[in-house]
Amino acid sequence: MAQTQDTNRKIILAERPKGAPNENTLKLETEAVPRPGKGEMLLRTVYLSLDPYMRGRMSDAKSYATPVEIGGVMTGQVVAEVMESDVAGFSKGDYVLSPSGWQDFFVSDGTQVLNLGPEPENPSWALGILGMPGYTAYAGLLKIGEPKPGETVVVAAASGPVGATVGQIAKIKGCRVVGVAGGAEKCAHVIETLGFDACIDHRAEDFAEQLAAACPNGIDVYFENVGGKVLYGVLPLLNPFARMPVCGMVAWYNLQGLPEGPDHGPQILSTILRMKVKVQGFIIFDSFPIELYQEFSEAMTGWLKEGKVQYKEQVVEGLEAAPQALYDLLEGRNFGKMVVKVG
Amino acid sequence: MAQTQDTNRKIILAERPKGAPNENTLKLETEAVPRPGKGEMLLRTVYLSLDPYMRGRMSDAKSYATPVEIGGVMTGQVVAEVMESDVAGFSKGDYVLSPSGWQDFFVSDGTQVLNLGPEPENPSWALGILGMPGYTAYAGLLKIGEPKPGETVVVAAASGPVGATVGQIAKIKGCRVVGVAGGAEKCAHVIETLGFDACIDHRAEDFAEQLAAACPNGIDVYFENVGGKVLYGVLPLLNPFARMPVCGMVAWYNLQGLPEGPDHGPQILSTILRMKVKVQGFIIFDSFPIELYQEFSEAMTGWLKEGKVQYKEQVVEGLEAAPQALYDLLEGRNFGKMVVKVG
Repeated sequence: MAQTQDTNRKIILAERPKGAPNENTLKLETEAVPRPGKGEMLLRTVYLSLDPYMRGRMSDAKSYATPVEIGGVMTGQVVAEVMESDVAGFSKGDYVLSPSGWQDFFVSDGTQVLNLGPEPENPSWALGILGMPGYTAYAGLLKIGEPKPGETVVVAAASGPVGATVGQIAKIKGCRVVGVAGGAEKCAHVIETLGFDACIDHRAEDFAEQLAAACPNGIDVYFENVGGKVLYGVLPLLNPFARMPVCGMVAWYNLQGLPEGPDHGPQILSTILRMKVKVQGFIIFDSFPIELYQEFSEAMTGWLKEGKVQYKEQVVEGLEAAPQALYDLLEGRNFGKMVVKVG
Repeated sequence: MAQTQDTNRKIILAERPKGAPNENTLKLETEAVPRPGKGEMLLRTVYLSLDPYMRGRMSDAKSYATPVEIGGVMTGQVVAEVMESDVAGFSKGDYVLSPSGWQDFFVSDGTQVLNLGPEPENPSWALGILGMPGYTAYAGLLKIGEPKPGETVVVAAASGPVGATVGQIAKIKGCRVVGVAGGAEKCAHVIETLGFDACIDHRAEDFAEQLAAACPNGIDVYFENVGGKVLYGVLPLLNPFARMPVCGMVAWYNLQGLPEGPDHGPQILSTILRMKVKVQGFIIFDSFPIELYQEFSEAMTGWLKEGKVQYKEQVVEGLEAAPQALYDLLEGRNFGKMVVKVG
């Protein structure tokens, strides 16, 4: 069932997952296309972004963001086309970045909508390298990680949109960069295309030993976006005054309660103490002033033009494929930034 | 066996403890009093400081400081009297702060020795409120914790020299201050003498519930010096953008390897992420510029004169009592800053 002009397909949260989400978690529903009123515009979704944080929105645990309500449309950023507009600064035919959620159409008064102009070169990039994931990498690495030339930076999910960008910026800053990714194909991409110095397969039996061998001078910055065994492999390698920006922990998103032991709490705290480590969580649009976004946007546009940053997308066709694509993403079965071509 | 002029008693590390130190860990030995040479001075120990970090020096795990060698004198700060001196700036009769270790006499060339003058008012305070513990509290709270008026600050070991100082400075800065201590007597002292708003007994069955009730607006700064159940009680109460300076984890110093589960690692990281927490370990003389010590020293001297900061010492008599006193300290069986009157 493809996108049409007279039906709004939407994907709603049918029930909160216990553990990993499954076929009962998200459901496709349809309704009439909503009508914009005075001071509003109608947006048609072209690309939907899929991101690990969406797993968090399915839960009602205390968090930084309001969870999606049962029966509510799943939240998400999209690139959309303006179909008709009574909002100043937005015209029919403009492309926009909008928090429309997982649906074909959205009526907006312009709040939190960014105009990308009538013919953006790579419209979907606003969901990735030039949007939230790229900005997350830039701000977390440079403002919390503060990498210095010659230091060793480790980043997991290294072929994903955040990790790939972290590593490439760290290379631009003169660091030794070691990625962690799932499988030989991703690791080869990380080294050959993205230019990391090394990439370790986290599925390897001797992952911790391989990581140690790839970091002969220890680790100065660990960009934390996965948690789990990668974190536990990193801890013994951290250098004095290491920095650890924390923007995700995808390996642990499906946990219900505390997992079985042993308890790594003492190891984490003792490393922080003995090595004088700074660990800092951040949520990109909460933690940094908006001026930084402009700085990021200019720097990244320049690096892309100069070919200093490479960007890989995985495009999934059709809104109905989005739920399974998200589940794949949460299990690491994606390769590059995942976007859904909705219409 | 008291201090004499012709014998140097010293306490050496006889073996590295596995778990809690015991009667085989430290041993008393004697030798002739060492003779100072050209450019050296002879120091006679008056007070020896006992501090939780000493447990770390008994281990040879990777750490920020060199461990004590087997057979070597236990490290420690002392207040000493200069007996004879060929070092510029130090005269017979001066009191000094010196890294002499656990012994009666020490020959020094002046390295890392601070002159306190011939008649300091409270010589032992240089080991506590006006020394390393006080400075640790000051720098960790103000430079990493950054408390703002009206915020809630929680500190454990609240009747100890670091915790008591953290809480009193936080009160001066206009915060709500909640202490954690072991037993009713210490809690009463923390509230009545030190002026904390509340103090929770960590031995209580319902410790976590009591802590939550004492922090109705959540926790903005947790000054971490114990680890263990206090940390795990604090985590669910942390507010967005909370700060956690980490200067110790005495509850975990005797651990061998990782303790049994459940694994609190995901809880720690998830809290850091969701609440955008900054956790930063520090070692006082490594982590801050020496100029800050001067600032601390002036501020604290003023607060003591104005009666805004109270200070409690527990004085143990005799060098031979020092090992058991340290073991008591590590188990929380002290009350106030522990010093040994050696001579």
